[in-house]
Amino acid sequence: MKTITNFIAVFALAAIFTSCNQNDEGGKSGAMASSAAEKVYVSPGEHDEYYAFLSGGYSGNLTVYGLPSGRMLKEIPVFSQFPTNGYGYSEETKDMLKTSFGMVPWGDSHHPDISQTNGEIDGRWIFINENNTPRIARISLETFETEEIIEIPHSAGNHSSSYVTENTEYVVAGTRFSVPYPQKDMPIDEMKGNFRGPLTFIAVGDDGHMEIDFQIDMPGFNYDLSHPGRGESHGWFFFTTYNTEESHTMQEVNASQNDKDFIAAVNWKKISEYVENGGGETMDAEYVHNVFDHDTQTTISTTKNEVLRVDPRDIPGAVYFMPTPKSPHGCDVDPSGEYIIGNGKLSSDLTVHSFSKMLDAIENEEFDGDAYGIPVLNFESTLAGTVKEAGLGPLHTEFDDKGNAYTTFFISSEVVKWKLDTWEVVDRQPSYYSVGHLMISGGNSRKPDGKYMISLNKITKDRYLPTGPELEHSAQLFDISGDKMELLLDFPTHGEPHYAAAIKADKIKENSKKIYRLDENNHKYAAVNESETKMVREGNEVHVYMTTVRSHFAPDNLEGIHVGDKVYFHVTNLEQDFDVPHGFAVIGANTSELLIMPGQTKTITWEPKKPGVWPFYCTDFCSALHQEMQGYIRVSAEGANTPMKWGLDDEYTSN
Amino acid sequence: MKTITNFIAVFALAAIFTSCNQNDEGGKSGAMASSAAEKVYVSPGEHDEYYAFLSGGYSGNLTVYGLPSGRMLKEIPVFSQFPTNGYGYSEETKDMLKTSFGMVPWGDSHHPDISQTNGEIDGRWIFINENNTPRIARISLETFETEEIIEIPHSAGNHSSSYVTENTEYVVAGTRFSVPYPQKDMPIDEMKGNFRGPLTFIAVGDDGHMEIDFQIDMPGFNYDLSHPGRGESHGWFFFTTYNTEESHTMQEVNASQNDKDFIAAVNWKKISEYVENGGGETMDAEYVHNVFDHDTQTTISTTKNEVLRVDPRDIPGAVYFMPTPKSPHGCDVDPSGEYIIGNGKLSSDLTVHSFSKMLDAIENEEFDGDAYGIPVLNFESTLAGTVKEAGLGPLHTEFDDKGNAYTTFFISSEVVKWKLDTWEVVDRQPSYYSVGHLMISGGNSRKPDGKYMISLNKITKDRYLPTGPELEHSAQLFDISGDKMELLLDFPTHGEPHYAAAIKADKIKENSKKIYRLDENNHKYAAVNESETKMVREGNEVHVYMTTVRSHFAPDNLEGIHVGDKVYFHVTNLEQDFDVPHGFAVIGANTSELLIMPGQTKTITWEPKKPGVWPFYCTDFCSALHQEMQGYIRVSAEGANTPMKWGLDDEYTSN
Repeated sequence: MKTITNFIAVFALAAIFTSCNQNDEGGKSGAMASSAAEKVYVSPGEHDEYYAFLSGGYSGNLTVYGLPSGRMLKEIPVFSQFPTNGYGYSEETKDMLKTSFGMVPWGDSHHPDISQTNGEIDGRWIFINENNTPRIARISLETFETEEIIEIPHSAGNHSSSYVTENTEYVVAGTRFSVPYPQKDMPIDEMKGNFRGPLTFIAVGDDGHMEIDFQIDMPGFNYDLSHPGRGESHGWFFFTTYNTEESHTMQEVNASQNDKDFIAAVNWKKISEYVENGGGETMDAEYVHNVFDHDTQTTISTTKNEVLRVDPRDIPGAVYFMPTPKSPHGCDVDPSGEYIIGNGKLSSDLTVHSFSKMLDAIENEEFDGDAYGIPVLNFESTLAGTVKEAGLGPLHTEFDDKGNAYTTFFISSEVVKWKLDTWEVVDRQPSYYSVGHLMISGGNSRKPDGKYMISLNKITKDRYLPTGPELEHSAQLFDISGDKMELLLDFPTHGEPHYAAAIKADKIKENSKKIYRLDENNHKYAAVNESETKMVREGNEVHVYMTTVRSHFAPDNLEGIHVGDKVYFHVTNLEQDFDVPHGFAVIGANTSELLIMPGQTKTITWEPKKPGVWPFYCTDFCSALHQEMQGYIRVSAEGANTPMKWGLDDEYTSN
Repeated sequence: MKTITNFIAVFALAAIFTSCNQNDEGGKSGAMASSAAEKVYVSPGEHDEYYAFLSGGYSGNLTVYGLPSGRMLKEIPVFSQFPTNGYGYSEETKDMLKTSFGMVPWGDSHHPDISQTNGEIDGRWIFINENNTPRIARISLETFETEEIIEIPHSAGNHSSSYVTENTEYVVAGTRFSVPYPQKDMPIDEMKGNFRGPLTFIAVGDDGHMEIDFQIDMPGFNYDLSHPGRGESHGWFFFTTYNTEESHTMQEVNASQNDKDFIAAVNWKKISEYVENGGGETMDAEYVHNVFDHDTQTTISTTKNEVLRVDPRDIPGAVYFMPTPKSPHGCDVDPSGEYIIGNGKLSSDLTVHSFSKMLDAIENEEFDGDAYGIPVLNFESTLAGTVKEAGLGPLHTEFDDKGNAYTTFFISSEVVKWKLDTWEVVDRQPSYYSVGHLMISGGNSRKPDGKYMISLNKITKDRYLPTGPELEHSAQLFDISGDKMELLLDFPTHGEPHYAAAIKADKIKENSKKIYRLDENNHKYAAVNESETKMVREGNEVHVYMTTVRSHFAPDNLEGIHVGDKVYFHVTNLEQDFDVPHGFAVIGANTSELLIMPGQTKTITWEPKKPGVWPFYCTDFCSALHQEMQGYIRVSAEGANTPMKWGLDDEYTSN
């Protein structure tokens, strides 16, 4: 095997080390530090001004931060098992992680996007994609819980996702790693011309429910990021591509050969009409759709067997390619919907396309040939302008409410502010180190809010006290309300924050759910008062209907369980006050604990392995008598004849 | 089943709601807020002054915070699976979670304690206990990784743990839920007099290695918390007990009957000598001991079959009981080693015992009978003083460097500062809400550092923006350098921080490891350069020796894998620079990703289910060409005859 020296990688490395030396310049002292301190300080008892939702990246989760304090308010489990509260372990939630490949206990979450109404973020739900085993999740912003996960068939590396259209008509998914479509066993080096890159449009109902509407069978490029049109361009969706070289190996060199790749402009309204009128062809697919049913508090998991494929060549005017230098990453649409920014990560310039010029060019058929039958628009015809030599390695652009754009540059490690229309750079600030994405509240909507910007940095190194070889990633909060960006705060992030979305707190806080109502609990195994608690044997399965309230379990003494049994503990939290969860754990369980919110029922299984008297207890410090909140289970040997009985305070029931 | 109204629980509830109404008083405004803001602000690029290690409680992990900023710098996975980096999923680490009950993917971590030398915290390791399936873990403070986990046999609810003696001779474990010793199938209501509560002393070697030295066969009470003696009392260990009533059901009422429970004073030096001289009897046990071997980067898991039991009644002078009101929780020893504070959680007074008076009382045989053969010392004989009506529901006391003690009161929701020797209350501050434990850096040592105090609160409610029914817990940072405690900051915690330990940053930061050296990598399946990469088939198992370096995998094209194979990806990160991890994920894997630090090798397995060409990729944004860091695996049907070949940049090897 040959050794490859890649000039770009070396260049990137050099830039990182250069930027590390700039560390001293990042600190503040004296009056400036005092001012920044006051700007980010949220007094005890006061609330933050914004919710910021940061993807957990390879944690598979979504983290919630308060701004400007930078405090992590919650980690919402989405695509990964979460031992803390039993998500992905409990009987009720484990099927949320079911896929056509079986149970997948981990995911790589990337791009959270808040639901929109009329092009403004509305705070109903937040969507997030999973890159590795392609899926999209929908999270309720009333409960801050994952309510639905849909798998994307025929896709691989669901990266250009999960962005929504301006009335949340669709949430999209794109294939980052092109693959045979449908999958088949074939030599890898015959990829070129034979792999495809389907783009998937998932319809979102008024209740948030997701259903795949259609898949567009696109050429086998890598689809990287995407954003919806808005305003005049509502009805279109834009996707960056890279590896238009269709290289199957050593892509760091082989996928960087073309001077330009493409932004795919997709007229989804046209395709949607085509499909409504019976267009497209049904093809076999296998994918799993998981919905958390609030009524029974259980996951309903359905395996689907087909998907509607549309060939864009069959729909005139459906899809065009706009040439864009060079391996573009971010594909960002300004608040007006007129400008589409291609962040060509191996370019030092930023390319801005004009939506109206694109329409004209289509009208006038200003094409430079086609790519696998998709018309390629002439580069100059759609070009609105170029931000010249703004930095090295542009990745992502967001917008404020004053006509400014903010672009991250990974290699030169900075955020650059520039003016829409004039393409003039007006400010630049270093990032520590090597910024990936950035976030402005509402930056992906018609009405961004130009108060704060966060840069999400890929390299941490010496920004915090060292914690061994593995470090958290790092974010930096800037005040962007003035002419110049002002760095306020560094804060570590949990997992890798690929991307983020923020919203003013008042759009969510009043709707936040505090408890689950016990009188709405229709869980099959709920005991909604202590008189309903019991043990039921079905063969070697024992169902324990248990309740928990400050500060005891009912029942708390259980006998008649034997080695070889599988015990289901169905635990209902009878509390109806805010912030009084109870936990349930039993020694030696080969699963997680349960953390049960007021009004909820949750279930874990236990297969006792040894005879004896074994304890269980509440894991959440719930009252002054929490330590006393425990019980015992008598386990007899397999084949022993201990009768089943259960009780509390020496009042036993048996059957 | 009867309904039970518990006056104490109702009382606790009332107190919580009362304290919620105090919310407005917690905020600061004007000059005070500005001063607090500046005190907690750590400028970008500057470092925090202290490391604080907070238990994750029911997350099973240990979290690392910087003080005074309150920023979470890291979550260290300990007793729970951690999808983020593959801990508990990867082949190298999954056996860290092995127990005598099989693989247990979750734990309930409680009380971190930093290793000590001469009674001062030294920053080598931090220990933490697991309550549910009793275990103790040791975490390296060079790598911030869990290096060792030892299971505690014959125990149930390992709560009064993992405190260390003043030269880290021992780390202790105690039985919170008394059980048959050894376990046996027996009626639960025959508990009294038949259950036992063994206390386990685990010897710690100079290299940190843990081995169980002996178990003390104690009466069947609930052992709650503990602390070592220091100075004159070095050689002794003190454990609080509750449920000396030995009730087996409805403990919130039945375990609260006795006016006094006990603090057990254990002369471990005497017992240690007894054991060294051949004392004690070997008894059967089954427990698992897991050590992460740095050389091979793999867990060595050993099942042990016996433990040494000592009967304290056979060793004159080994164990005494000191009566202590009332269901005491914390058992805290002051920096001099003279005072042992019993935090009687159902009492409004704090009871302080004197070590020297205890020795005198033993000398003078001032006994009030015995409990199951253990002498009970006369209450007045050991009493140093009482802090009168300090608050309601005392839980835990720590100390500063000026002769002050700080006690948390759960029910009256406050921290109370009082003077050692005079027992006079000198300050009190409300906590929001219902404080459990508190932490002062070095508070459990001869040399506490009286700068900051953190209260770890059990109820969060309205302290932050709401995030649905499930909330993070909350900590409050106080400046305790002046006469009065000054509240500086509220910050949310991740998981439930039962307890915490802190240390000055300079005791750790210089020793923090940055990379693993590739020339010290003796992993069985490492490929330490690209020329060593290969695929090896052993029946239906395929071992892939893979490397990763910015920005490609070698090999990145693999063929000859079939449905029905089990593929082991052994991925070595060739980087030798700080903070350049690479990740590895493959579509549809029924496990987590790998996050591989520079110089490390990690392994996941993949059982492909469908023929096709499937991608894998790097999950950690490692360079400007990270998006290009991917590869393909050709999977053929079971029984197909595709030859095995692997390559990079179209140079293939086959066998």
